[in-house]
Amino acid sequence: MQAVVLQPSGLRFQDDFVVQDRPGEIPIRVLCAGICETDLQLVRGYMGFQGILGHEFVGIAEAGKYAGERVAGEINCACHRCEMCRSGFPTHCPHRTVLGILQRDGAFAEQVWLPEENLHRVPAEISNESAVFIEPIAAAFQIGTQVDLNRFADVVILGDGRLGNLCAQVLTSQGLAPLVIGKHPAKLERLEQRGIRTQLLSGLKIERIADLVVDCTGSASGFSTACQLLRPRGTLVLKTTVADPQGPNLAPVVIDEITVVGSRCGPFSPAITALASRTVEVESLISGRFPLAKAEQAFRQAQQKDQLKILFDVTSS
Amino acid sequence: MQAVVLQPSGLRFQDDFVVQDRPGEIPIRVLCAGICETDLQLVRGYMGFQGILGHEFVGIAEAGKYAGERVAGEINCACHRCEMCRSGFPTHCPHRTVLGILQRDGAFAEQVWLPEENLHRVPAEISNESAVFIEPIAAAFQIGTQVDLNRFADVVILGDGRLGNLCAQVLTSQGLAPLVIGKHPAKLERLEQRGIRTQLLSGLKIERIADLVVDCTGSASGFSTACQLLRPRGTLVLKTTVADPQGPNLAPVVIDEITVVGSRCGPFSPAITALASRTVEVESLISGRFPLAKAEQAFRQAQQKDQLKILFDVTSS
Repeated sequence: MQAVVLQPSGLRFQDDFVVQDRPGEIPIRVLCAGICETDLQLVRGYMGFQGILGHEFVGIAEAGKYAGERVAGEINCACHRCEMCRSGFPTHCPHRTVLGILQRDGAFAEQVWLPEENLHRVPAEISNESAVFIEPIAAAFQIGTQVDLNRFADVVILGDGRLGNLCAQVLTSQGLAPLVIGKHPAKLERLEQRGIRTQLLSGLKIERIADLVVDCTGSASGFSTACQLLRPRGTLVLKTTVADPQGPNLAPVVIDEITVVGSRCGPFSPAITALASRTVEVESLISGRFPLAKAEQAFRQAQQKDQLKILFDVTSS
Repeated sequence: MQAVVLQPSGLRFQDDFVVQDRPGEIPIRVLCAGICETDLQLVRGYMGFQGILGHEFVGIAEAGKYAGERVAGEINCACHRCEMCRSGFPTHCPHRTVLGILQRDGAFAEQVWLPEENLHRVPAEISNESAVFIEPIAAAFQIGTQVDLNRFADVVILGDGRLGNLCAQVLTSQGLAPLVIGKHPAKLERLEQRGIRTQLLSGLKIERIADLVVDCTGSASGFSTACQLLRPRGTLVLKTTVADPQGPNLAPVVIDEITVVGSRCGPFSPAITALASRTVEVESLISGRFPLAKAEQAFRQAQQKDQLKILFDVTSS
């Protein structure tokens, strides 16, 4: 089958990839998939992953209770037997595999396999290209499961990229009025059109204006800027990982007694509801669509700073 | 007067330092003062501080309502007018000065000045040398004001130095049973003698054993070790600052959804109560006593890894 494979030598399109059956799991014919910031980091060496990339997708289940239906899939595959699983945190199972990230081939391929429990039916109101956003929207909803959003008056989202945009829309839908600070006028303009306040970083006087900062920059410098924007005792939600082994100086965290909350994958159900009800809009974030065979070109475009979401059109419905 | 002054050229003892009156504040004759890890960092350039060092002390108030009595002093001097002060966080006042750390001469001197509201009477049960520990013990009590200690079953304190020892004693007094992980058998032995469990880092298999880790290492590597010891969704309390502009990679914080809580100065009252009732023992932590004139020697000794608390005997009672 066709697949986009990350190898030590780099990213490579293959049209003769032989997919292995995974007994007890469900094969899914991939319709559409999206390139995420994490994919760009993986290509730069983050996690040392090798295999088929891709963890944001929609497809048609080819077996099981969803057979013939469109599904999106949670990306963490847990053992369900260990202490973390039994404590209710399967996404932190130490034995987990993660779709296209950790010891499990991903969704930039004609077929992907996942346990049935990971699958969620995609309602008809959600188009294929929108359904690709379920996973990153779920990650945005994760913030509200970790911190009490009612506690924060002044909220800043740092970064106007894919994840920053979705976090801004999700937090707005949850009753907050975030200010998005970014580097790209066109990306900020898209948010303004949805009634979300924005500010260009270059014109910003960096001062303590926030009780909560969500760092969606995907860069090491984001953390330090976030600390400078936070009032003492503020909360910094860290949404993105960077491959850089060196991180920021943590002295401001101690001096200002900042609480830093690492935040990763989130709940699919509110993400599906938000998309179906159009509370979160995603179509305008799509800045390119490619077949898998043009993966290199797709990744090159995704890495450009003016781009938002790049999709792969994999098979047709 | 005699004073230990940090200048751009380094640490220097002066016996002709001219202290300025601070109208509205209280002069205190310093009896005894202690060298803290932060002092060692300040000497290495942290905060860019210049002036008299020292923020752990006991002395005799020379004016005001405590005149003639022994007092210890909170180190943050706030404006009491700004938003942070009015929100109940004077230790985070953006206009604050900090004793021996930020724009305020410290206590390694025959006389120090502080606002009266910063002073706490030291009861007779507490010796001069023990009273020096009120400030760092207060910092240990700060942890319990920031996180709900009842939530944590397995607690690790990383670092067997001065602050690690005090945090271990304080958390034990608060009903926890911390495991102290350190590098120095003699320091760990002192904790064992008080019934506190210890483990030598070199013999430790680094695995996820803790729900709460308190990083008292004062080194950048402590953070990464702490992340490796924490179970996913665990809490890392960061007690020490390092002058190094480069910090650790924060990817584990995101992947394991760790909460990092910066923690600084704490409440004096429980610290004084703990010392007066001998719930926390400090005399055995004193590994050297010097006059101010031997400051260089005192700091050299404080920097050696086998040392705990070095005191300055400043004036006699």
